[in-house]
Formats: sequence, C-alpha cells, structure tokens
Amino acid sequence: MSAGERSHLEREIRQQPAALGAALERNVPAVEEITRELRGRGPLEQVVIAARGTSDNAARYAQYLIGARLGIPVALAAPSLTTMYGAPAVPRGARALVIAISQSGRSPDVVGVLESARAAGVPTLAITNDAGSPLAAAADAVLELGVGIERSVAATKTYAASLAVIAAFVARLGENAAATAALDDAPALVERAIELALEGVPALDPHHRAAHVVVVGRGFNYATALEVALKLRELTGAVAEGFSPPDLLHGPIAAVAAGTPALVVASPGRVRGSVLEAAQALRDRGAACIHIDDTPDADLRLPAGVAEWLSPIVAVIPGQVLALRWAQVGGHVVDAPPGLTKVTATY
Amino acid sequence: MSAGERSHLEREIRQQPAALGAALERNVPAVEEITRELRGRGPLEQVVIAARGTSDNAARYAQYLIGARLGIPVALAAPSLTTMYGAPAVPRGARALVIAISQSGRSPDVVGVLESARAAGVPTLAITNDAGSPLAAAADAVLELGVGIERSVAATKTYAASLAVIAAFVARLGENAAATAALDDAPALVERAIELALEGVPALDPHHRAAHVVVVGRGFNYATALEVALKLRELTGAVAEGFSPPDLLHGPIAAVAAGTPALVVASPGRVRGSVLEAAQALRDRGAACIHIDDTPDADLRLPAGVAEWLSPIVAVIPGQVLALRWAQVGGHVVDAPPGLTKVTATY
Repeated sequence: MSAGERSHLEREIRQQPAALGAALERNVPAVEEITRELRGRGPLEQVVIAARGTSDNAARYAQYLIGARLGIPVALAAPSLTTMYGAPAVPRGARALVIAISQSGRSPDVVGVLESARAAGVPTLAITNDAGSPLAAAADAVLELGVGIERSVAATKTYAASLAVIAAFVARLGENAAATAALDDAPALVERAIELALEGVPALDPHHRAAHVVVVGRGFNYATALEVALKLRELTGAVAEGFSPPDLLHGPIAAVAAGTPALVVASPGRVRGSVLEAAQALRDRGAACIHIDDTPDADLRLPAGVAEWLSPIVAVIPGQVLALRWAQVGGHVVDAPPGLTKVTATY
Repeated sequence: MSAGERSHLEREIRQQPAALGAALERNVPAVEEITRELRGRGPLEQVVIAARGTSDNAARYAQYLIGARLGIPVALAAPSLTTMYGAPAVPRGARALVIAISQSGRSPDVVGVLESARAAGVPTLAITNDAGSPLAAAADAVLELGVGIERSVAATKTYAASLAVIAAFVARLGENAAATAALDDAPALVERAIELALEGVPALDPHHRAAHVVVVGRGFNYATALEVALKLRELTGAVAEGFSPPDLLHGPIAAVAAGTPALVVASPGRVRGSVLEAAQALRDRGAACIHIDDTPDADLRLPAGVAEWLSPIVAVIPGQVLALRWAQVGGHVVDAPPGLTKVTATY
C-alpha cells in the first residue's frame, strides 16, 4: 500500500454509518415478522447465543440489552458441549430462543449449536453477513447484515451492523417504539464519533508501544471494553484485555503495572460511577487512564446525548480508530495481521 | 515469615485433599435433599449462576458439567443487570435454578442476583464457605463448603471444595450413581497431583519472570485454564490469560510473542486433540509450551486414570503449585498480594 492510500480497515471504519443504516433499513420487515412470531409463541424464559471473536462481543451486548429490557437471562453458549460432548444445546421444547452471530456464517461449532437447537424444536435465529452461508441455512430465521464484503481481517462494520440489528430486534420484541425510533439517529452519531476520534487519537500516540493495555467498561459497554481490547490485540499485538470493574477488582488488577495504558469507557449511564471508581483504582496502581467520555475534558470525546443502551454502537468507534492508528504508527500490517484469517473455522 | 516456614497459601494447597473430602462428606444429606426437591418440581430448562473471581471459574466448571451431563444451558449472570439496571435475574416462575457461588458470601452483587431470583419464585442455591453469610441467608438452600478459614487471599481449597460439591450436586441431580461413587477417589487423586507437582515445578523456574503467560484448556478444563491464569496473575503479577482453543484462534493469538510461556492443559478426554492443535499454533508463534498431562513426557504430570469430567479438580493443582513457586522465586508476597483483599465487595 503506497503512502496516502487508505487501508481496507480505515475505509471500513468510515463505512460504518452507512453500513449500520443500511442494515437497519434492510431488516425492518424481517425483524417485524420474526418478533411477531416469537411473541405468538408465549413468554420466552431464556436466550442462548453462540458466537466467536468479534461476534461474541456483539453477543455480550445482546446479553445486557435482553437482560435489561426484557428481564430474560442470556447464556453465551459453550459450543464444545455440542461439538465435542454431543450434548443438546437446549432441552427439547424449552421456552428459549437460540441466536447465532457470525459474520461469515461458516464456523462449524457455531452452526452446530443452531442445528442442535433446531433439532430440539427451539426457534433459531442467525445474524450473519452471508445469507448463503451454512449458518443461514441452519436457522429458522435470518437477519442479514448486508454490509458488503469486509476485507480487513479485523471486523468493524459487521460489528456495528450486528449491534444495530440486535438493538432493532430487542426493541421490537419488547414493543418499545421509542427505542425503535431512537435507532434512526445511530448513523449520524457514529459519523460524529468517527470525526471526533480522528481528531483526538493522535495525541495518544506515545502509548502505542504498550505491551499491555487494559480496557474497562460495564453494563451495555462491557461489550465495548471487550471489543476495543480485541481490536488493539489483533492490530497491534499488544496484550489488551477488557474487564468489567468487579471482575477487574476480583483479582486481575494484580497484574496492572505502573504506566499501563487503561482505556476507560465512561460514557454516561447508570454504571458510570462504578467505572470511574475502577479508573481510580487503576490510577492508584500507576496506570495511565485514557477516558472515553462525552465531557469536554475526555481524552477521547464521544458525541453528547447518546442513550446508554445505544452507546456501545458509538463508544467502540474511538477504540477502533485508536487501534488502527497505533497499528499504523507501530508499522504493523493493518489489513491482515500475521497469524489471523478472516474466516476462522473452529469445531 | 522466616525461611523454611510455610505460607498460608502452601498450607492451604496441601489441605485440599482433606478439604474436598470433608466438603463432600458434609454435604451428602443436603445434596440428597436439594436434588430430590428439584426433581419433584419438574424438568429444569436453565441454570443461572452468579459468581466473581475464583468462584466464577468454579461456575464455569458447573456450566460444562451441567451442559454435558444434563443438557441444560447455564447462563453466567451479569449481576449489574440486577444491581445497576434493576432488571429481574430471571422471569417470574421460570423453569430455572439460580445458583450463587462465593467463598465469603459477602459480595453484594452476587447476593443481589439470588434475592432477585427468590423474589421471582425461582429456586435458589448458595455454595459458600460461610453458612452465616448474607448469601446463605438469601438462599432457599445452602451447600456449605466447611473447609475452615482460608487465610491466603488467593483461593485454593475453597475452589477445590466448590468443584467437588458442584460435581456431587450434578451427579445426584442426574441420578448418576457411578459419578457419585467416583467422587470418593478425588481426595487421593488430588494428593497424588500435589506430590507430582512439587517434583515437577522447580524445573520450570526459568520462566518465572514472564510478563505474559497464556493458559489453554477446553471443555471441563476451560475452568482450569481460567483459574490457573488467575492464580498466576494474583500471585506473580504476570498478565496471565486463560483461553479455550477456539477463542484463542479467533483473534487473541495475535498477541502471543515468541518466548511466551503457554501452559497447555492436555489431560485425557474428548477435547484433547483440539487442545494439542492450539498448542501447535502457539509453538508456531514461538511460544514455550508447558504441557500439563498424564503422560510420562509431560512437563507437569498428572496422575493417570482420572475421568475427564473429574479432571479439573486434579488438573488445577500443578497450576496452583507453579504460581506459588514462581511467586516465591520472584520474591512476591504470597499470602496477601498488593492491592487485593480476601473479601472484595462489588455492587
């Protein structure tokens, strides 16, 4: 790639507003139909989600959104139970919904969970960027992201679109018209977040050589912490870890050394106080806290006025841009990090 | 502590055979009564478990054991949904069991999940070392570990006893008399594992300064990978991370540099091939693989003939001894690592 030419990754980061807007629009009829049918089956008591990698972080967002809005527990599936131990993913006829999320729709273990659920007579839903994939074929219903081919190994626009489609699905399942309407603002908010990140990130370049980076987020933005950590790890090779504040304090903080950069996802919401307390504990150990927030003194500023449940779609942006920028400054191969592949087939 | 005097941690590691034996014996009547009552309520469709830190790793073992043996999905609870967002832990009257695991029984977020479940009319079970704790008071039923006070901040004997009690509970709930009987061998197997670890670990001391350590395990022993990583992290300050092979391959392997010690939990069982493939991928990146296995050429040898479902009680032992030994060689404070406390109250 010659100087000045943009990477696939940078282009895909910038495509996110359009991608998630298109994913939302495309799936209005499917979301309407699938949620109507699910409501007709009687009350759901649980949701099981199978996913890996970035899609597993989208599943984490779904866990919090479904838990907070619908009061339904979400189990993140352990696919090896099905593929290695031959156990059913859910009991026959359980009052459950099983969702699989996979950009490629081609990881056999994720497909296996959906097939097991379908065989048990439990409704299944695939969220994928490939409607022709084995995953889509195995599901009762499909929400197709339709964001076009993602060329960078590190997923960005498929993550944004996955979150948007999950949010639309949960809003409609809960018959929350206000939430459904609020999603219309998401593309513009993401656009603004990209502009702000491109301004703010270069000031943080001195940290780009860090071998260990911690990312803290809670509630809806626990997913953001995990996803930003995964981008940093994939793109820069840093050991980047996402934690919720309680998980960090129950042991792992012991490994945070002085000078460790700590990204703090402190966007407004009910968990903000808890996240700021964790930031103080990190500072007490000498960590260099980098705040992602909507206040003027934030290190990485977010657009203001974003509802907490919607904020993960926006708050991940500065983390993506930071990971891209640190990878560039460090001379890393951005689009195809060594040892990673776009479709990872695991069993 | 003068030279030659043992740490609380070392004493507690050595107490594990007696501790888990006593926990099993003490809980025979309670396990019998609780499982009889649960079976009388009709088929369970889901289990939700709330836990933090080491207890969360015990919960992970329960997730695999309940999934493999009973075919019931287990959701690891996100307590903030209850404490921060006010959502119910489970829908009213759900065909569920909610379990909380906590050595101290004093973390308000874990107690909150159990209280929420009880208010929803769903049966609750506490597994704790303190029958006088708020957690025990909040539960319909209690399995008391009864292993005596654990003085080391890093939990060992409460982990062993938690796994044993979970195994006894699941065996009885599934009316699996052979599994119940097999548990009688656990104390002797753990005793033998401690002897073997004390012989094998010193040869690995040159790795004790590693800043980053990876631990890989799958299926039942995914819990082992997570728990060994947590011990290494708490005791040595290394950034130690536990991964399942698929999770490692879906991105995080990008952060494994040449020379990184990688502990490979390769004890016999259905997932062994998958774990050995991950070890090869790690070696391809230059990682220094340390095999925990029951073969003669294992770096850390386990006793032979342990059933796969029972092996996490045994396979964690060399990891505990390794973490203790590397902490001693590195001059770390073993019993009370800086910044950690025995009871971590999170909300």
